[in-house]
Amino acid sequence: MKQFLDNDFLLQSDTARMLYHEHAANMPIIDFHCHLSPQMVAEDYKFRSITELWLGGDHYKWRAMRTNGVPERFCTGSDTSDWEKFLKWAETVPYTLRNPLYHWTHLELKTAFGINKLLGPDTAREIFDECNEKLASPQYSARALMRRYNVEVVCTTDDPADSLEHHIATRDSGFEIKMLPAWRPDKAMAVENPAAYRAYIEKLGAAANVSITSFATLIDALQRRHHFFDLMGCRLSDHGIEEFYADDWSDTEANSIFVKVMDGCELSADETRKFKSAMMQVFGEMDADSGWTQQFHYGAIRDNNSRMFRLLGPDTGFDSIGEFNTAKSMARFLDHLDRRGKLAKTILYNLNPCANEVIATMLGNFQDGSVPGKIQFGSGWWFNDQKDGMERQMNSLSLLGLLSRFVGMVTDSRSFLSYPRHEYFRRTLCNLLGRDVENGEIPIQAIGRVKDMVEDISYRNAKRYFNF
Amino acid sequence: MKQFLDNDFLLQSDTARMLYHEHAANMPIIDFHCHLSPQMVAEDYKFRSITELWLGGDHYKWRAMRTNGVPERFCTGSDTSDWEKFLKWAETVPYTLRNPLYHWTHLELKTAFGINKLLGPDTAREIFDECNEKLASPQYSARALMRRYNVEVVCTTDDPADSLEHHIATRDSGFEIKMLPAWRPDKAMAVENPAAYRAYIEKLGAAANVSITSFATLIDALQRRHHFFDLMGCRLSDHGIEEFYADDWSDTEANSIFVKVMDGCELSADETRKFKSAMMQVFGEMDADSGWTQQFHYGAIRDNNSRMFRLLGPDTGFDSIGEFNTAKSMARFLDHLDRRGKLAKTILYNLNPCANEVIATMLGNFQDGSVPGKIQFGSGWWFNDQKDGMERQMNSLSLLGLLSRFVGMVTDSRSFLSYPRHEYFRRTLCNLLGRDVENGEIPIQAIGRVKDMVEDISYRNAKRYFNF
Amino acid sequence: MKQFLDNDFLLQSDTARMLYHEHAANMPIIDFHCHLSPQMVAEDYKFRSITELWLGGDHYKWRAMRTNGVPERFCTGSDTSDWEKFLKWAETVPYTLRNPLYHWTHLELKTAFGINKLLGPDTAREIFDECNEKLASPQYSARALMRRYNVEVVCTTDDPADSLEHHIATRDSGFEIKMLPAWRPDKAMAVENPAAYRAYIEKLGAAANVSITSFATLIDALQRRHHFFDLMGCRLSDHGIEEFYADDWSDTEANSIFVKVMDGCELSADETRKFKSAMMQVFGEMDADSGWTQQFHYGAIRDNNSRMFRLLGPDTGFDSIGEFNTAKSMARFLDHLDRRGKLAKTILYNLNPCANEVIATMLGNFQDGSVPGKIQFGSGWWFNDQKDGMERQMNSLSLLGLLSRFVGMVTDSRSFLSYPRHEYFRRTLCNLLGRDVENGEIPIQAIGRVKDMVEDISYRNAKRYFNF
Repeated sequence: MKQFLDNDFLLQSDTARMLYHEHAANMPIIDFHCHLSPQMVAEDYKFRSITELWLGGDHYKWRAMRTNGVPERFCTGSDTSDWEKFLKWAETVPYTLRNPLYHWTHLELKTAFGINKLLGPDTAREIFDECNEKLASPQYSARALMRRYNVEVVCTTDDPADSLEHHIATRDSGFEIKMLPAWRPDKAMAVENPAAYRAYIEKLGAAANVSITSFATLIDALQRRHHFFDLMGCRLSDHGIEEFYADDWSDTEANSIFVKVMDGCELSADETRKFKSAMMQVFGEMDADSGWTQQFHYGAIRDNNSRMFRLLGPDTGFDSIGEFNTAKSMARFLDHLDRRGKLAKTILYNLNPCANEVIATMLGNFQDGSVPGKIQFGSGWWFNDQKDGMERQMNSLSLLGLLSRFVGMVTDSRSFLSYPRHEYFRRTLCNLLGRDVENGEIPIQAIGRVKDMVEDISYRNAKRYFNF
Repeated sequence: MKQFLDNDFLLQSDTARMLYHEHAANMPIIDFHCHLSPQMVAEDYKFRSITELWLGGDHYKWRAMRTNGVPERFCTGSDTSDWEKFLKWAETVPYTLRNPLYHWTHLELKTAFGINKLLGPDTAREIFDECNEKLASPQYSARALMRRYNVEVVCTTDDPADSLEHHIATRDSGFEIKMLPAWRPDKAMAVENPAAYRAYIEKLGAAANVSITSFATLIDALQRRHHFFDLMGCRLSDHGIEEFYADDWSDTEANSIFVKVMDGCELSADETRKFKSAMMQVFGEMDADSGWTQQFHYGAIRDNNSRMFRLLGPDTGFDSIGEFNTAKSMARFLDHLDRRGKLAKTILYNLNPCANEVIATMLGNFQDGSVPGKIQFGSGWWFNDQKDGMERQMNSLSLLGLLSRFVGMVTDSRSFLSYPRHEYFRRTLCNLLGRDVENGEIPIQAIGRVKDMVEDISYRNAKRYFNF
Repeated sequence: MKQFLDNDFLLQSDTARMLYHEHAANMPIIDFHCHLSPQMVAEDYKFRSITELWLGGDHYKWRAMRTNGVPERFCTGSDTSDWEKFLKWAETVPYTLRNPLYHWTHLELKTAFGINKLLGPDTAREIFDECNEKLASPQYSARALMRRYNVEVVCTTDDPADSLEHHIATRDSGFEIKMLPAWRPDKAMAVENPAAYRAYIEKLGAAANVSITSFATLIDALQRRHHFFDLMGCRLSDHGIEEFYADDWSDTEANSIFVKVMDGCELSADETRKFKSAMMQVFGEMDADSGWTQQFHYGAIRDNNSRMFRLLGPDTGFDSIGEFNTAKSMARFLDHLDRRGKLAKTILYNLNPCANEVIATMLGNFQDGSVPGKIQFGSGWWFNDQKDGMERQMNSLSLLGLLSRFVGMVTDSRSFLSYPRHEYFRRTLCNLLGRDVENGEIPIQAIGRVKDMVEDISYRNAKRYFNF
């Protein structure tokens, strides 16, 4: 009987244990896609309580609580105390067995707070108090947590109109961990909501100091901001899209659509697609010209619960996995860039794991030998960010591409406590490789390569690939 | 070498064996979705032979026989004897290795008849004779079989126009096992076949004592029958749909479409979708108002072999798994109900296992904390009702929702011999949990919760959820 | 620690080892679908070097090299030597760990050349020299390689306009291994490219000695060639399609479309679909009339990289897995043939493994008891031709059909070194069955049936099914 969460958690063979402890465990973390608050890093934020840290914005936990029969006021309500919310979470935890939340929760308690107890209603009070006491100390500030987990670089997720003031302040403060911005221009193509779009364009124009009156001036403003982001150390873009858009378009058409939406008109579905197709091409070219890496997260259907959307807004736990047949558009999009020599390094993340094989084989269409692993299959995203999802992603990539060249894990998280997911990922990786070695599917004579592979995927591949 | 079908069948660890034998095995069965004949229960039917019981309507077995090269007359023909058909089945069984039929067949022989021999041409005669001898005794009537398997509740599948006379007779007979009706109003929205639809509406009107001349009177008639079903103990509806329908509609539009189809006209695809969208909303509201649970089985493509359909009609083994991108419609359908406070407890069953992750994440969009596990992912349905399908469903639910709150297994069967599928399901569940405990992925300290979880999923969750 | 690639490679239980060594290993190979060059067999080709044999046309290896950062000139370039290319491949091999290429490469080195070293930059020169030395000997000619692997029958892939001269020459030479043609008429329905289509029709007319001026004369020409292929021993057709086409059509419509494309016009998408629907029906009927087996390979998206397509043409490593919801069309296509008694034996191969369950359940709709396993689920194709893909295909087939009746493995390869894939497949099959026996999921008492099943799937089922 293996003990829960011990030193050899998830490691089922001697080779796996050796690979993890001797090669993966001590690698620094490059977390090249996350949603941390730059302001919290700039201010070296201190957390009020474990409730703020855990339940302040974590829609995974809220979903589990709602599923367990917990009323909304204990999830997101303003009339319940930190302790009341925490207790409801503690009551829910035992019902999350087999859900990744059970593992994340206890891994965070152990690695951040040194707490090895199981969270439940019986232990809730002592764990609440112990965590809060520690959080009050300087060893648990935002930056201290990043240091605790041996973080080397983080890339946040930032709008082109953002001033990046917190990135600048953090850098100027001499903080030894690099916090770099990443370019997320989703709002610049969100023409499906004309009113919000116009407001955004105004904000963007101000940030860029450009009067945006046409498609050309829109691109000019974005290009200026792109350049500014580049100066601030940005090396990645990120795009949240339902599916890929690769309709034909011309500058004239794009301009007409832009003028129409700025004039206050609703667009047709075709116009919206065409405009998004244009923007995605333009963004792709900017990234190629700057030597950045472009990331695409596709396949979610969002805000499915309109009642709760009105109450709580987006990103509150009402999104789920969609079904999109987008392989042909994805190929066309990448091809349009490639044939003009404008295909940047690219990372593709899919939300529906049924598309794993589509993605893993898409990569090969555009690998051009210029950079090892130029086109990447992103690590298991969102709902797939758990052992099964990680294994499926890595198995597909292994079978249909080169796992050796994988740039590895990201937390994609808003929380300063999510870094143990890198540990979880590395244990899962080592377990897969260790099993294959012991099964005779990987030769023991190649163990040197396997050790390097573990270190590469944990850290070195990302370091080489992104040029931070 | 483990023995086939012994006491520890499918149980690969000590913990799994403990969980099954001490916690799952003795739980009663609540079979909340099946296709048993209420008349057979009312009459306490005696079976003529094992052929009638096994091959009278089991399209799984027919498909296997046809695949094995058995001519149709030995499957569904009227010119072959019970013995001839049974022998052909016995000849096929050895070729079904790795198909669930191999397990079901021997599990049924063992648990119902105490026969531990392997069925094949060499043992066919003795097994045929022994089964038939036993079937002639009172211990093998319809009700006796239900008692043998410790059944507490069964829910049949019934049309709104059904008189429920057999349910009433069964209840009045003092039969200690609850046989409740379930509301399956598929025919009331099957406007794609106008002639059959008109005939059905006539029958429904007669049953409800309502003259159905409009959409409003249609709803009135259905509401009356819904109320009658409720009085008869009905607590669930069930809907067999290809995909989800959630187009916008108004009463006026629905009425126009209804009048058009009643006038003998064919409808356009858009009209059909709109009408189905209307009916599904209306049905959903009725269920919410009554505190029922609504079930949806979607994703089959049916009657694919037109030659055999003309010969044998529906449900004869010519259906298969379809491909539908219906997540957005499903979300919209559920949202339309939810935003008006009319979303009943809901169970979603998908036929294509590729949609497992779509369903398992859809649930969370509409969990509102009012009932634990309010929105459920139904157990592996039809082609997925086997070990791999069960494991995939439970793994998806575990990773993306709360397995702890799962209402568990249904036979979905026409046969009085299908109850061992609950045993099969419980063994599979215990095996998954036992493995995780022994791997250190579930802490042994939480074993009390795991034991409760096994009992909950086997029995108690359903008991609490449905309020029979 | 199991040794890599030893005698018990991939065999994880005693039963698996017994099944493989005593029952699978010595079965001859019937490779009923491959892309070998008939000319090379006719001429008993000698290979210049291991580079020609391995890298001359293997787009799997090219993709891996490009992914690993190898410039194109070392993949397909004409300005690099055999040694330079081989070295780049040898440098890539260690990075292919967990990709099937790693296994294929070493299995081919071992079984063809008796080389047990791991290929890498350190061993590249000695392996290159040893292979080339052996290739210069008569024991390594095309035919000698086929003999080495105990091949009994191969079916190549041939255009209806092909003279089959190399098949005839090979047969007349007294070569003891049967090399039969297979009918691949994709070009006869490729109307989406009118210019190429017209050129093809001219060539076809010449081969058939028919002046093709109408749909009727097109069919006449094809029927003549079909008859000729039949005389030459052809027993299978093969069709490479994106998805299934089953639109309604009439002879008049098909003729109009044919005349239109021959007149130099572009066709609409609807016309193209209709024409393909017509051709597929016609081809299906020809096969049924001749007692052949029709094969369908569907689901690829091809030539996604237009830049490389212009440089290198098709089949150079720029294809990937598509997403098609084609189940309904597939059913309709098969039904159209079946209802007129014209459904030939059929093998369905899907590229997207998400369709495994769709295919495996589709089979049952058209099994008619006339031939065991009349409708077949083809073995893991292309990207799925590896252990995971083979297991998924066999598991789906097992759970949803009859694995016992499976006609088994094909190489689908252009290479005379691909026969070890049959060994790989058989090991995988034996491992699955052995595990089930030892787990108690298959009774040890049925081991005789399991042994026969292994021999059947390795060899005998194909022998019985195709009537070569």
